[in-house]
Amino acid sequence: MNHPYALSASLKRPLPEALAARLRNHFGDRFSTAQAVREHHGRDESPFPVTPPDAVVFAQSVDDIVEAVKACAEHRFPIIAFGAGSSLEGHLLAVQGGLTIDLSQMNRVLSVDAEDLTCTVQAGVTRKQLNEHIKDTGLFFPIDPGADASLGGMSATRASGTNAVRYGTMRENVLGLTVVTAQGKVIRTGGRAKKSSAGYDLTRLMVGSEGTLGIIAEVTVRLYPMPEAMSAAVCNFASLSDAVRTVIETIQLGVPVARSEFLDAMTIRAINRHSHTTLREAPTLFFEFHGTESSVREQAAAVQELVHANGGQDFEWATHPEDRTRLWNARHNAYFACLQLRPGCRAISTDTCVPISRLADSITGARAILDTADFPTALLGHVGDGNFHAVLLIDPANQSEVEQAERLNDQIVRLALSMDGTCTGEHGIGLHKIGFLIEEAGEDAIELMRGIKRAFDPDGILNPGKIFRA
Amino acid sequence: MNHPYALSASLKRPLPEALAARLRNHFGDRFSTAQAVREHHGRDESPFPVTPPDAVVFAQSVDDIVEAVKACAEHRFPIIAFGAGSSLEGHLLAVQGGLTIDLSQMNRVLSVDAEDLTCTVQAGVTRKQLNEHIKDTGLFFPIDPGADASLGGMSATRASGTNAVRYGTMRENVLGLTVVTAQGKVIRTGGRAKKSSAGYDLTRLMVGSEGTLGIIAEVTVRLYPMPEAMSAAVCNFASLSDAVRTVIETIQLGVPVARSEFLDAMTIRAINRHSHTTLREAPTLFFEFHGTESSVREQAAAVQELVHANGGQDFEWATHPEDRTRLWNARHNAYFACLQLRPGCRAISTDTCVPISRLADSITGARAILDTADFPTALLGHVGDGNFHAVLLIDPANQSEVEQAERLNDQIVRLALSMDGTCTGEHGIGLHKIGFLIEEAGEDAIELMRGIKRAFDPDGILNPGKIFRA
Repeated sequence: MNHPYALSASLKRPLPEALAARLRNHFGDRFSTAQAVREHHGRDESPFPVTPPDAVVFAQSVDDIVEAVKACAEHRFPIIAFGAGSSLEGHLLAVQGGLTIDLSQMNRVLSVDAEDLTCTVQAGVTRKQLNEHIKDTGLFFPIDPGADASLGGMSATRASGTNAVRYGTMRENVLGLTVVTAQGKVIRTGGRAKKSSAGYDLTRLMVGSEGTLGIIAEVTVRLYPMPEAMSAAVCNFASLSDAVRTVIETIQLGVPVARSEFLDAMTIRAINRHSHTTLREAPTLFFEFHGTESSVREQAAAVQELVHANGGQDFEWATHPEDRTRLWNARHNAYFACLQLRPGCRAISTDTCVPISRLADSITGARAILDTADFPTALLGHVGDGNFHAVLLIDPANQSEVEQAERLNDQIVRLALSMDGTCTGEHGIGLHKIGFLIEEAGEDAIELMRGIKRAFDPDGILNPGKIFRA
Repeated sequence: MNHPYALSASLKRPLPEALAARLRNHFGDRFSTAQAVREHHGRDESPFPVTPPDAVVFAQSVDDIVEAVKACAEHRFPIIAFGAGSSLEGHLLAVQGGLTIDLSQMNRVLSVDAEDLTCTVQAGVTRKQLNEHIKDTGLFFPIDPGADASLGGMSATRASGTNAVRYGTMRENVLGLTVVTAQGKVIRTGGRAKKSSAGYDLTRLMVGSEGTLGIIAEVTVRLYPMPEAMSAAVCNFASLSDAVRTVIETIQLGVPVARSEFLDAMTIRAINRHSHTTLREAPTLFFEFHGTESSVREQAAAVQELVHANGGQDFEWATHPEDRTRLWNARHNAYFACLQLRPGCRAISTDTCVPISRLADSITGARAILDTADFPTALLGHVGDGNFHAVLLIDPANQSEVEQAERLNDQIVRLALSMDGTCTGEHGIGLHKIGFLIEEAGEDAIELMRGIKRAFDPDGILNPGKIFRA
């Protein structure tokens, strides 16, 4: 078995000098071939080795993107869009070389239409930056992957997070996009109307396309009125299955819970160390309720009853904003906290999602698979959606750990697929799940996807090697 | 000006005898070229003249669809999928001739997964049939276009209805599809997991594709727990803008209203006659609230306050199930009730949708445009989404009325487009809005859509002439 993260460089060709000259001319200082800059753009949070692009440009406008794309199109040179660099699946790695278009300087909020509960941002705006920007409007943007990702990147991977159980994912919350096509044309997909039946849904097609169908330059998203009341709670359970059963029953009862997160004992240990919390190291649920005062009370009472019926204990409230913030910051930092359990390790994170009735089987099955590992593992996730992550903390230099991790990953994914689930709830395919996508969608569906890819990007310059093998 | 609904038959060619023989051999009695059968399948609720296909087959299984598609593909002969025949935009008309695949006999509910809040049906199952089937599960399917449409057809047009303000449209509620491709292959898009980031979103691409990218054979949709409490209310206003302002404020306040429908005085007159109601003939709102007892009370109180502040009167409750059913049946029959205001007329229904902040301008603008009409007109719609319908009751034999109706329709659509709205919130493009789609999406986006069409259906056999001009 070859090292599974070894990337072939066979398709790479050097940056054409004419292309470099054209980019240097347009971008000036914002064009770089410096090794540090290239290496920074050749990594993400995945276990793959650093795979730098040949050059990086820093776009500040849609026109900048157009110029970079047109230049690369002329030379049929690969293009990779880069937001916050927080991909977990190798989306940003220049496996065929290429030019990375860094969008982090496209960080302006273009409009906030509070009356319509929408706003439009440049692709580099991050979720935290957006929420900071709108904090005085009484509105908020709920989608919250662990990292402070950019809205362009979140759109490209169809991201979600802890609030998805109530507010949906990027699929439900992106209303429209400004996209630069592989030909350097600027199109606007969707609009600001809440619904539309006007032609093919290019918005939903671009959402989740991982930079392979166009460069997302601007994003129009839905906002939500800040709930009148919010309340969070933590409780722990004697067993993983008791905790999971509580969540399943909550969803099946139709309680409109805003967040319901599972963290196993290992994850709690990690966040206790990292975030200085003092939670009991046991299978744990974090809940959050949004609504009017009385609705939050009702939801909380309904959930508390289910918690007790399933033997949950230490039910603790976090009603003060600071307590809630501390709790959710700890949750958002869980991935990084887990990494610190084993200095120098890299994490492989599974991302399966199954129908809620199969969640208990899926997660206890995953636990049994992980129990055979020779390295530390943790389980956590957005269980209200049927989505959870197994975090495998491996030494990337240790070939046997790497191979074992991939085997366990395979088993967990196959278990989910056998339950009518998906190999990825929110992280995307990237480099790591190309084989699983074929198993999940089937060759004929993949052929349709490839047909779309060829139609949009006939020369294959947009993020080649991702979603499909090149 | 030519008659705008005159359809060119120049692209038609006769049904090849070998194709007819193959279909007759497979389908037996379920293959028909009888004029009555063809004419029944050559019409819908649009103002276009009857345009029959060359033949009709009645599919009873996915395999039947595959056989019909493969046979047509061999002869490059057009194929039109037909569900309940309730399209408003000419989707079903055989403008290039062809074979209609009637799916109404594919009317089995394949599975109800109550624990997962999902079910899978054959494409011909209608929304009422589904709700009747699941009525003992405590679950319901909320999407309710006026007609008792099939779930395949509703998927194909990205339909919605009165419940969309709370529950979303087919876009949000279709989890997966079984689709027969133009090559006669069977693919499964999506799955039953609540979310997924696995590859291009073929489900959302097929939803709204109007039979032009594949034949939808089976549909997996989300179901919802029947709310613990439901309550409906009616009230009327001195003016259209008072009524609309009330709805806008309701949405902006974040009240999770389940339904908020506007009906103008003319529409109320029509439904009073048709449904024997005795509502005051004035601009009227219908509301419905879903939730727990106390949540419904809270929502109702919040809305009642807004109604009073905007001068609404005759606030009347319908809490008994029979009263609610009577009210919503009257609403669902509004389109047909309007048709009966003028015997022998046909209706042109606009379907614009705008950001909620522009709704008052959009709807009062539409009213002013309609006031110039020489025929009766009505206004009604799903105003909580920013979506409303102007119903233009024309004599289809009267060229001057037809031309005027098209002019007014144009003006109403252009007004919506100028407000960042869409030409169609839920009816689709079909034959009637092909030009508006170009204005709304732009030529470059249309070119991407055409690229998808060519990739999926290189011979152009799937419902040709719809969405794009042939």
